[in-house]
Amino acid sequence: MKENKTDALSIPLWDGGVRRSALTQRIGTARSTAFERRLIHRMWEALGQPRVGIELWDGYTVAVGSPNLRINDRGALWRLLVNPDLHFGDDYSVGRLDVDGPLETFLNEIYRTLPEDFPIGGVLGAGFISWLYRARENSLAGSRHNIAHHYDIGNDFYKLWLCDELVYTCAYYATPQLTLAEAQVAKMEHICRKLRLRPGETVVEAGCGWGALSRHMAKRYGVKVKAFNISEEQVREARSRAKAEGLDGQVEFVLDDYRNIGGSFDAFVSVGMLEHVGVNHYRNLGAVIDRVLARNGRGLVHSIGKNYAGPMNPWIEKRIFPGAYPPTLREMMEIFEPHHFSVLDVENLRLHYARTLEHWLEAFETRTDQVRAMFDEHFVRAWRLYLAGSIASFESGSLQLFQVLFTRQDNNEVPWTRTHLYPGEE
Amino acid sequence: MKENKTDALSIPLWDGGVRRSALTQRIGTARSTAFERRLIHRMWEALGQPRVGIELWDGYTVAVGSPNLRINDRGALWRLLVNPDLHFGDDYSVGRLDVDGPLETFLNEIYRTLPEDFPIGGVLGAGFISWLYRARENSLAGSRHNIAHHYDIGNDFYKLWLCDELVYTCAYYATPQLTLAEAQVAKMEHICRKLRLRPGETVVEAGCGWGALSRHMAKRYGVKVKAFNISEEQVREARSRAKAEGLDGQVEFVLDDYRNIGGSFDAFVSVGMLEHVGVNHYRNLGAVIDRVLARNGRGLVHSIGKNYAGPMNPWIEKRIFPGAYPPTLREMMEIFEPHHFSVLDVENLRLHYARTLEHWLEAFETRTDQVRAMFDEHFVRAWRLYLAGSIASFESGSLQLFQVLFTRQDNNEVPWTRTHLYPGEE
Repeated sequence: MKENKTDALSIPLWDGGVRRSALTQRIGTARSTAFERRLIHRMWEALGQPRVGIELWDGYTVAVGSPNLRINDRGALWRLLVNPDLHFGDDYSVGRLDVDGPLETFLNEIYRTLPEDFPIGGVLGAGFISWLYRARENSLAGSRHNIAHHYDIGNDFYKLWLCDELVYTCAYYATPQLTLAEAQVAKMEHICRKLRLRPGETVVEAGCGWGALSRHMAKRYGVKVKAFNISEEQVREARSRAKAEGLDGQVEFVLDDYRNIGGSFDAFVSVGMLEHVGVNHYRNLGAVIDRVLARNGRGLVHSIGKNYAGPMNPWIEKRIFPGAYPPTLREMMEIFEPHHFSVLDVENLRLHYARTLEHWLEAFETRTDQVRAMFDEHFVRAWRLYLAGSIASFESGSLQLFQVLFTRQDNNEVPWTRTHLYPGEE
Repeated sequence: MKENKTDALSIPLWDGGVRRSALTQRIGTARSTAFERRLIHRMWEALGQPRVGIELWDGYTVAVGSPNLRINDRGALWRLLVNPDLHFGDDYSVGRLDVDGPLETFLNEIYRTLPEDFPIGGVLGAGFISWLYRARENSLAGSRHNIAHHYDIGNDFYKLWLCDELVYTCAYYATPQLTLAEAQVAKMEHICRKLRLRPGETVVEAGCGWGALSRHMAKRYGVKVKAFNISEEQVREARSRAKAEGLDGQVEFVLDDYRNIGGSFDAFVSVGMLEHVGVNHYRNLGAVIDRVLARNGRGLVHSIGKNYAGPMNPWIEKRIFPGAYPPTLREMMEIFEPHHFSVLDVENLRLHYARTLEHWLEAFETRTDQVRAMFDEHFVRAWRLYLAGSIASFESGSLQLFQVLFTRQDNNEVPWTRTHLYPGEE
């Protein structure tokens, strides 16, 4: 198990992880040249002159500001110049880059000033670099591999910093004061209200995580749920929790791909799976929904998205979420339009995800000793960067969170208004 | 003026309106042939065997049902076989077709059973027919012409059957019991809440009709409004109403195209204009919004739409709304994505438009004598068909009504939830 974990998140360095010789080390930390200083200064300008500090290994200051980025050796500098999107993450993880001050503030400032036409391959980068790091294809086997990479690294790890219910998607802060656990319950309630679940109805969930929503729907709304997931670790935990709560007759967890969903259901729900589906499979997903949704059934898709088409941050895609892609609303319509589904409601919960991630990062930071013991320091730094970077992405608006509610187009049993989503003080 | 009206809505028949000779009339009503009966029966089957009656001029019954379509002469039959989408409207208008029973029920049943692959040119139709009736281009001059066709046919006419505030877009029935006038006010309130207008802010409205929303925003929210419209009749009425209410310092009505909007505004709103913009101009519209919207400004676009791309009903496009096109959500994103606008909220008010149209048709039917005196019987029948057909389109789901709220992507001054849209009993 341990080996599997290390494998999934190991960070292969450009030198193949070979221990560097004394000579290499000496070269790597010899005084920076005027040329190198000019190049990194040019990169800072190309980034839109963010109000952050940048300092080289020999103490040379490229820019003064706070938080402050420290580039700890010559190799890290050149790697940053060639492909900052990818190498920033790797070199931060292994400590060749450091940030004094809050990491999310640093990243937020970078995202804030980043010009739209910033060359994705960096100042020296070439087009083939993005080609190298294009999103991994989500075939049936590819999806299993991609999902295992992230979700099978160990339930014990996620239990350290997610809420007790193990919900690993954007929460809903019905009021800003809610705790993480309360906001996750509020999210599940919000979704159930949108779907207007009635006792005795059947629901299919595509990509169910550790099963919190499935169990919530069964317990609170008296529906029968069939939930699909291709992460073995998650399904095992989901089944055991359902059994412990006496829900195993009401909620069935199926270790299978969403493409194999069959049957007929009154509601279809998918929270945080679409990011892993891949745009070229949206039409398939729509066909699956069309196949299984009852005549007056309701569907909800909840997904990270973007305002304009573009790939996931390549470091996140490579190290954290292989195969992940946040779609635009236009791209999401590829699920609905071919089958004439009627979109009833789109809600953007962007700032709720920033808040959720803040709560996760906060919890993560209090447990870094345990994470380090499970994995290593590189892992701790990589996950810190991933969580902080995600906060910055949602706060700066480079990522969105869309909840899309839909039905078949001839379903006239839809609520007259959305008032039922806001029941007031209960 | 009268001449202009007749011109705008005259219906040129296939025989050029020439009075038919006795011989032509005799041929036109001679007993239907077995071949004609087979053809119209085949069309009824191609329509998905709707539960309506169809009867020929000689009493021959093609299908038994209610409501019942009467085809009153041979020419009408052949025109229907060649291009039902276009000729049904024209021939109903001049009385060569009749429907016993409620027209909207008849049309609803047709839309309900209509197969997706129904040949748009009818049973005998050819592809070139759709080419002939493609939507008219909305260039600056083209738009003026297209808008005049519909909106300049006389304020007196619209006053007969719209509410007193002259609102000619989908109302919002916050509760199903509202009257038309109440629901139009509720719609304006709903939009103002979505835009979170604050006293002293500036608003630009693109396509303002007779100015009801502009005046509502000024009166109730204390904002300063600049409203654009290219219909002369509407702008004249809007100005006079604003003046009568003492709002002429606060609301400015500009007789000009949305493409010429300049300045900077805290909110952009457009209700029922997008249908006339044309898909190939959405990018321009987005550029206009991007040019004039303040940094933390909010925008709302309210438009008829569709679940899948396809042209407007050709008769409506030709006789009622030249240049009109209801977009899909995917197509609407062409306004927002190029400028990285962030879509916050999409609400589908489809059934509210069906209800609105029912109220309009009801009022229209009580005033047909006055409409007939203003125009003629053909006009009355054409508008009855347009209103009834629109009810059926919204009820069957072949048309949608989308309200899209958006801001710039880095605007974090957005409300935490949508609770403020549902203030409860006031």
